[in-house]
Amino acid sequence: MSTNLPRPGQVKQVTSFSNPLVKDIKALIAQRKHRQKSGRFVAEGLKLATDALAAGWEVDMLVLGPEARDSAPAREVAATARARGATILEVSTAVLAAMTRRDNPQMVVGVYGQRLLSASALEKAFAAAPQGVWVALDQVRDPGNLGTIIRTADAVGASGVILVGDTTDPFAVEAVRATMGSLFHVPLARQTREGFREIAARWPGTVVGTHLKGSSDYRTIDYRRPSLLLMGNEQSGLPQEMAEACSALARIPQAGQADSLNLAVATAVMLYEIRRGDLSLT
Amino acid sequence: MSTNLPRPGQVKQVTSFSNPLVKDIKALIAQRKHRQKSGRFVAEGLKLATDALAAGWEVDMLVLGPEARDSAPAREVAATARARGATILEVSTAVLAAMTRRDNPQMVVGVYGQRLLSASALEKAFAAAPQGVWVALDQVRDPGNLGTIIRTADAVGASGVILVGDTTDPFAVEAVRATMGSLFHVPLARQTREGFREIAARWPGTVVGTHLKGSSDYRTIDYRRPSLLLMGNEQSGLPQEMAEACSALARIPQAGQADSLNLAVATAVMLYEIRRGDLSLT
Repeated sequence: MSTNLPRPGQVKQVTSFSNPLVKDIKALIAQRKHRQKSGRFVAEGLKLATDALAAGWEVDMLVLGPEARDSAPAREVAATARARGATILEVSTAVLAAMTRRDNPQMVVGVYGQRLLSASALEKAFAAAPQGVWVALDQVRDPGNLGTIIRTADAVGASGVILVGDTTDPFAVEAVRATMGSLFHVPLARQTREGFREIAARWPGTVVGTHLKGSSDYRTIDYRRPSLLLMGNEQSGLPQEMAEACSALARIPQAGQADSLNLAVATAVMLYEIRRGDLSLT
Repeated sequence: MSTNLPRPGQVKQVTSFSNPLVKDIKALIAQRKHRQKSGRFVAEGLKLATDALAAGWEVDMLVLGPEARDSAPAREVAATARARGATILEVSTAVLAAMTRRDNPQMVVGVYGQRLLSASALEKAFAAAPQGVWVALDQVRDPGNLGTIIRTADAVGASGVILVGDTTDPFAVEAVRATMGSLFHVPLARQTREGFREIAARWPGTVVGTHLKGSSDYRTIDYRRPSLLLMGNEQSGLPQEMAEACSALARIPQAGQADSLNLAVATAVMLYEIRRGDLSLT
């Protein structure tokens, strides 16, 4: 008799630092190529494992240190992951530290399947959220900034984040960490610069870029829905060709001697302004 | 004949990794104790050296890699620093990399004297800025967050940042890096929690704390000047005793599934709201 339920995953005790699964996880942390090739990534911590399972993400492996095996919530998460087919690795703190290159590793480390919206899924998501707010990031370099922006996008209820051009990998461990679990809540897609310009050209609402030469105070713009916010990279901001794809250019006023705001900070200030009329405490 | 001009500093070629000056700089980067004991700190990069000199900070040493010695702006900064008494170290890229533990070190690395306002200087600064906005950070842990908050405080023209309790070291190299030079523009002071509560008790304007249980939407508060914004730490926010020191508790509304905002992001959203009526593009 066949069933649609997945076969429960195996439970393995791993003591060797050179075990192939340990090497696989190390490579997923260290090498973007290995992440891309295998379509998987590593997220540290029980909270993120809980978030991933609740959001229905594919769990490939769950690694448990000794403390996790004594913790009821961690055991519960492991049972759920195993029932969905994940392999459970039971390891020593030393193996966990070596695997994650951390002196004080988290006691739960998960390997998950990457999710990026395809071009057609992105179009469907646009169509499904005519009142939505989207964030697009052009060539963003810093994984911490990217992760923090995904966290903020989640907090303001944005519809998703579009990674344009050579924007850094959202599945890098520093980026995942900075999302604080929001990676599992916010739809992500990749686009070339050309692809982004095509999207912008037929966008029904406001496409707003943040620009140091932006002529409009960010508080004076009419953000028609759906709204698409485009942010440039940390060093050089938006190049001319990308600024020209926007229907409005915004600037955030400054008063002191700082040259600019941190990118994640500027994105948050913009998102809270765009969503100003929508958000309330109750 | 005596003069008030400082004696120009020495220029030294350093090739040995075990030179005492190299060891001193390594210890300033690695050890908070050594920074505190010597009252100095390290900031990387030509931009920060330029900012430090322009703002009149004490320059103890300036380390120049080979590329810096071929660069006119770097040579100019070095000449200014030397005229003010700084020692100039000329080193190889390998020594610079070892010193800063970076594969691609900046070609200019400076050692500067720390500056924190004394309790009486802080009182004077309060009195001098009756319309000012101050930021206080309770037990903040992450140097990157602290540095980003100092950068934002600069950008909104805040009067200064008060580091309360065990808040992490603003002179740690990661914190300095995240300030992007704003460390040299924003007055900093340390206070115990008790000292902060005393300041808050006699504060003439609004003392606003950001709190997950804050009962007021952050956009509905009357921020009377001088305004004092108190932010709690990354893990646990403001404890009860600190929340009680505030005259208003604010909450930033959220819409998605994120538990909270990144601390530097939340501080920026608050600061841009408090300064909303003051900032404009011209």
